[in-house]
Amino acid sequence: MRRVYFDYAAATSLLPEAFEAMMPFLKQDFGNPSSLHYLGTSAYQAIIPAREEVAGLINAQADAIIFTASASESNNLAIKGLSLANHNKGNHIVVSAIEHSSVLVPVKNLKWLGFEFSVVDVDPFGRVDPERVGRAIRPETILVSVMHANYEIGTIQPLKEIVKVCHKKGVFVHSDGTAAVGRIPVDVSELDVDAYSFSAQSFYGPKGAAALYLKPGIRIVPLVEGGIQEKGRRAGTENVAVIVGMGRAAAITKEKLSEWSANIWRLDERLRTELPKKVARLVFTGHPIERLPGIVSLCVEFVEGEALLLSLDDEGIAAASGSACTARTLKASHVLLAIGLPHAIAQSSLLLTLGKDNTEADVDYFLERFPPIVQRLRNLSPLYAKYLKGENPYEFKTGQGHNHEEN
Amino acid sequence: MRRVYFDYAAATSLLPEAFEAMMPFLKQDFGNPSSLHYLGTSAYQAIIPAREEVAGLINAQADAIIFTASASESNNLAIKGLSLANHNKGNHIVVSAIEHSSVLVPVKNLKWLGFEFSVVDVDPFGRVDPERVGRAIRPETILVSVMHANYEIGTIQPLKEIVKVCHKKGVFVHSDGTAAVGRIPVDVSELDVDAYSFSAQSFYGPKGAAALYLKPGIRIVPLVEGGIQEKGRRAGTENVAVIVGMGRAAAITKEKLSEWSANIWRLDERLRTELPKKVARLVFTGHPIERLPGIVSLCVEFVEGEALLLSLDDEGIAAASGSACTARTLKASHVLLAIGLPHAIAQSSLLLTLGKDNTEADVDYFLERFPPIVQRLRNLSPLYAKYLKGENPYEFKTGQGHNHEEN
Repeated sequence: MRRVYFDYAAATSLLPEAFEAMMPFLKQDFGNPSSLHYLGTSAYQAIIPAREEVAGLINAQADAIIFTASASESNNLAIKGLSLANHNKGNHIVVSAIEHSSVLVPVKNLKWLGFEFSVVDVDPFGRVDPERVGRAIRPETILVSVMHANYEIGTIQPLKEIVKVCHKKGVFVHSDGTAAVGRIPVDVSELDVDAYSFSAQSFYGPKGAAALYLKPGIRIVPLVEGGIQEKGRRAGTENVAVIVGMGRAAAITKEKLSEWSANIWRLDERLRTELPKKVARLVFTGHPIERLPGIVSLCVEFVEGEALLLSLDDEGIAAASGSACTARTLKASHVLLAIGLPHAIAQSSLLLTLGKDNTEADVDYFLERFPPIVQRLRNLSPLYAKYLKGENPYEFKTGQGHNHEEN
Repeated sequence: MRRVYFDYAAATSLLPEAFEAMMPFLKQDFGNPSSLHYLGTSAYQAIIPAREEVAGLINAQADAIIFTASASESNNLAIKGLSLANHNKGNHIVVSAIEHSSVLVPVKNLKWLGFEFSVVDVDPFGRVDPERVGRAIRPETILVSVMHANYEIGTIQPLKEIVKVCHKKGVFVHSDGTAAVGRIPVDVSELDVDAYSFSAQSFYGPKGAAALYLKPGIRIVPLVEGGIQEKGRRAGTENVAVIVGMGRAAAITKEKLSEWSANIWRLDERLRTELPKKVARLVFTGHPIERLPGIVSLCVEFVEGEALLLSLDDEGIAAASGSACTARTLKASHVLLAIGLPHAIAQSSLLLTLGKDNTEADVDYFLERFPPIVQRLRNLSPLYAKYLKGENPYEFKTGQGHNHEEN
């Protein structure tokens, strides 16, 4: 069976060069970087250029990079670490409504340490208005967290403007850059952001490798405390192999990004142009212009996202219905609800995320297999039946509602 | 140059079988385990047997295993997670004086969330008296954390008795099993411990793979919050390759442990018997009987531990002077101070940790190269000069003290 992988936002393949760079550290060079002998030294010295390469991808200084094991850990470290380090200055945090769960959950749970938070809504394209962020800031606000781009609808935020507004009021800004890094050029120095999370999994590096950029001079309370690794900001033996792999992937991504993006843009545009010609009632989500390449997010009305994924999988097509981190909860995406979609439509979400290895043939295959799948699933749908009869498919009498709203 | 690796407590080599098991997940099987398609499924399904293998090594149920990225993370998760989950029952924690920094630092830092702690001293062999633990427990005590065995002096604690004392008083027990797992058989069910940290790096598994055993039914507040991975107890995309590698290493370790230990015991005993014949004024630390195989901990009087390591390294011998996690701080080990050694002797610590691949020839080589190194370093030592003159080398007039005490 032909295989088409359109789930690059959930996981990327590993660059062969990154794989090769990792190998010595899974074989003979297994030392602990903290050890004061030949094997420790070779591990320790391998981390130095890797840190520089990772920093280089986002135009940061090497010593501003804290290695972690996942973007979720980076987000947790930023949210809890900056809040706790600044608790004497205030107890209020501002986030956007479409942050990843690894930002939203820690922010909510900080309440029992006495913190409060405000949520800034987004417009129907998923954009955060910097002025609204400014209005949400109170005298006791210490931290604003707004992602650089959304992992689910691809919308890019006016981050530089948000940072300006916040800095004018003396408030730190953290940004989750997981979706952005590896898809668009990122320059944290130009953005002037104080903390920035990203993961090797977004740019063809290994799993288990991620980082938090922290602007030099800013204090943070570590999440994992103990040893003095990462200058005391993240204890635990460094995972040398994946750090080296992340470094190699960062260097290659920096070099190849524009070439990869050009291909991804072309395929992305084709999907957006051709799909509506073949299937009616598709609702594309995200911003029409300010968006990442290769994040094709749409709702397929009258079809359940999960059923769609399983049918696509039967044809060898790997896709998603939202964030991988919440996929198995089977809840409607909070991002799609935040941009104003009704539950019944948000449940029909399909997320095609393209990567460097996708080809025209992948798109051809998808365009061929997708329409009959949709048709078959719609034929089973009572909503679709109402639609065909010319009735409003989303109008229910009491008690007839679509149950998933209560999940 | 001949290479002898005597630093297995800091890092183990990776079992070839574990390496092979990891390969598919660094190559073609790169999916996110949360994804609902073929690549997600293959990743998801690979974690299931790995969890069973890891659980099997400590005689636990698979669903009691929470995967983390390091033993330090497991310790932090246990300490903070159990304290926060039980803060309504009390605010007091008991630890032993010789815990790893990833236990001690979080316990100390919980004070600014209103927690208090007591430290239970150890005897000169590094043993914790269960009765002393019992006496340290107050009505508001919610957690006791005592390691299973010490990573630096090898002493095994009477953990089962400590657990009994604590459970009688309704207090949870966490134990850091990092040093024990992979060196002795561990049975968490028989120990009846509530939480138990361990790392793949202790049993020839990959870096970046560790676990916290948590007795079923016990609530914990996650350290990394967000997605629903690990049943909501640790968010973030699973690092599939290292989890699979950890599983394979656990299965092989379970099978081979007694064979490996027999060899390690023999070499360990030879070092302990032969070294004092060749070098005077060695102080062996740890318990003479209740100890791990292959942790040969000693102080080489009148020699600085760091200088000794560098000289050994010049001869191709990799050793340590204490915990890798604090090696680069160059402070005297808090473990050696806790068993009552004076600073001047604790500074001369040498830690030889043996592993499955060490041979008689390694011991021969060490026994040959070690004495002249010690002699050369002692010849530079003013303490040694005093000793040769028959004076007390550790008696100083005011102002003449060994500066390292203030580090």
